[in-house]
Amino acid sequence: MLTPVLTRIDHIGIACRDLASVGAFYESAFGLTVASREENSDQGVREVLLRIADAPAGASYLQLLEPLGPDTPVGRFLARRGEGVHHIGYGVTDIEAALASIGATGVRLIDPRPRHGSMGASIAFLHPKDVGGVLTELVQAPQPA
Amino acid sequence: MLTPVLTRIDHIGIACRDLASVGAFYESAFGLTVASREENSDQGVREVLLRIADAPAGASYLQLLEPLGPDTPVGRFLARRGEGVHHIGYGVTDIEAALASIGATGVRLIDPRPRHGSMGASIAFLHPKDVGGVLTELVQAPQPA
Repeated sequence: MLTPVLTRIDHIGIACRDLASVGAFYESAFGLTVASREENSDQGVREVLLRIADAPAGASYLQLLEPLGPDTPVGRFLARRGEGVHHIGYGVTDIEAALASIGATGVRLIDPRPRHGSMGASIAFLHPKDVGGVLTELVQAPQPA
Repeated sequence: MLTPVLTRIDHIGIACRDLASVGAFYESAFGLTVASREENSDQGVREVLLRIADAPAGASYLQLLEPLGPDTPVGRFLARRGEGVHHIGYGVTDIEAALASIGATGVRLIDPRPRHGSMGASIAFLHPKDVGGVLTELVQAPQPA
């Protein structure tokens, strides 16, 4: 694998108990602005994306995640670890090709096929045990309509 | 505070037990390249910076951190939490101004004044308890000589 697969840090996913207060904190203390608010029942989360920077390879965001209930991935994370960084999302240009090449190195794919993520992106998660303890997400931005 | 303070995600700091093997993994599985290797005895770490992307506001990196011993901040983090994301570093254009404005919102500053970070940057850490459980670093890139 000589071709760089990762094009940018797309987002940092942060688990929190109260989306409204943590979001307001990031807006007021760091001057960030809300790009999107979504609820994703498949993933059991309510989320806010705060835009950090635009760049040629795509924007970077903070993704604040509040679980829809205790028996969800983020709910269990909060019970076990408390608030903090939940996962890192990296931009890729071709998520199918990235999954194939990364999977070929022996990294277990939580999502062998991409699924729908925030703001129309295609996403897939890699197993944290195979990525140095970091829950890692690949993100392919949506194609322009 | 209406002016955006954060200009980019500068780096993601990841604590690991074996810098060589985790670095080799990121190079081979994700096609990243090493930008810098440093040892920082003040912080008790040996580190590798892997470049993820260049952008007008500055590059983004993965910063892999191996403790120089168990009785260091990263050594204690590994004993308590295991390998994984240790902190997030955000780019700022003026770190003194950023510390003043962020400190004025009530966030405790671990470093009230900037100190020396990787590759000649000025850095300062904010208290994770005041930033939603995330150990947060501000990074001002070095001025061109």
